[in-house]
Amino acid sequence: MNPPLHLLRSEPGLSRYASLAQALRARVVAGEWPPGSALPAESQLANEHGVALGTMRRALELLAEQGFIERIHGKGTFVRQGLTGATMLRFFRFDSGTGEVPKSRILQRSQVSAPATVSRALGMGAGEPVLRLHRLRLMGDQPRLFEELWLPLDLFGPLADDDLSTWEDLLYPMFARRVQVHVHRAVDDIGFSQLSAVQAQHLALPPGHPCAQVQRSAFDLAGRCVEVRTTSGDAHAFHYTVTIT
Amino acid sequence: MNPPLHLLRSEPGLSRYASLAQALRARVVAGEWPPGSALPAESQLANEHGVALGTMRRALELLAEQGFIERIHGKGTFVRQGLTGATMLRFFRFDSGTGEVPKSRILQRSQVSAPATVSRALGMGAGEPVLRLHRLRLMGDQPRLFEELWLPLDLFGPLADDDLSTWEDLLYPMFARRVQVHVHRAVDDIGFSQLSAVQAQHLALPPGHPCAQVQRSAFDLAGRCVEVRTTSGDAHAFHYTVTIT
Repeated sequence: MNPPLHLLRSEPGLSRYASLAQALRARVVAGEWPPGSALPAESQLANEHGVALGTMRRALELLAEQGFIERIHGKGTFVRQGLTGATMLRFFRFDSGTGEVPKSRILQRSQVSAPATVSRALGMGAGEPVLRLHRLRLMGDQPRLFEELWLPLDLFGPLADDDLSTWEDLLYPMFARRVQVHVHRAVDDIGFSQLSAVQAQHLALPPGHPCAQVQRSAFDLAGRCVEVRTTSGDAHAFHYTVTIT
Repeated sequence: MNPPLHLLRSEPGLSRYASLAQALRARVVAGEWPPGSALPAESQLANEHGVALGTMRRALELLAEQGFIERIHGKGTFVRQGLTGATMLRFFRFDSGTGEVPKSRILQRSQVSAPATVSRALGMGAGEPVLRLHRLRLMGDQPRLFEELWLPLDLFGPLADDDLSTWEDLLYPMFARRVQVHVHRAVDDIGFSQLSAVQAQHLALPPGHPCAQVQRSAFDLAGRCVEVRTTSGDAHAFHYTVTIT
């Protein structure tokens, strides 16, 4: 008989299944099961961790609620692929919005020293090199969102000087394929501002026009901040719904 | 031996504990346990519904996640009191924001026929009578938010002509005490606009100044819309954080 591979230590303040969820999460983060891959059967996982099947099921439910894994009926349990990157549109309603993925146009790509706010957010030392992108999102050929992105060069090096015409409209799936960075969670800070001259020009709006600004920090499975992004769009197209219970 | 009082019928498409949660919810909505009251012991509830204790525990967990009940360690399980009404501040950051409850000043109270959009939201016939309030929220004596509220007169009659000096800064707890309306859930639609002349005057800002506008529909335990509200505040004070997974 094989001994269990991952005996569960109980963590103070955590229920047994929450400790178990944390242990499973550590295995995902360590790369044992890459994003998109299937987890072993519940019974096998329960054996490996030396717990009852019911406890394992509750731990897996918790991980599913946290968005770490997804359970596809009749197929099994899979590590989530990560965000698709189209989520910025949840904050805006444009006339031409027909559910299609907005087109992406990279206006500028450069390697620069990270400004202080960016390096802090990325958890890097001051002045470390980052890849900076200016990017326009278009719907039905209308420019709608102007974005400035900052990406740590140590992760995104291969995207620093490749052919931009090979880039895709959705960045996160491309990041996953090209540099194995899986964006798992994003924190969006919504505020209100006025368009700068450059932003206004690209969006075909007057300078100083009211805009909604979304400051995003995006994180990978291990919780490292892998992207800082500022998205600006016409304030009058901004719309967001929150349910409070 | 007494027969179980609430034998569980299984609902198609719902797991056993989700059906059970629905049955418990129906008892709350029917008024069997009013907001703030304690639920019977888990073992008694399990007996009444003819289910195992573990199933009852999962159903209660689900109701707690949905915000219907709350479990207070060492005290028991209680029907949630409803929202406190201070939640509009989650959308704004004011300089004087020190966590205190903003003061409330009712500027106007009148009985009017509900405009079409309001009667639709409240699920009433066109032109039915509603109580309309104009209300100012102040922090450190600075006017910060201007609100227009619409309340169905059949529920809020006792608040139509009482002494306004007896009103409290937080409306929802007062609604619960005075007219037994418990606001359980609110849906807030956020957009950007410009202040009207009246709004601007009350907020001591220039007319046309950019503002964030929150359109709220508030619901009681049974899911009836019991309040429609528009809140306006300086767009530059608007700030909201969303986490996406």
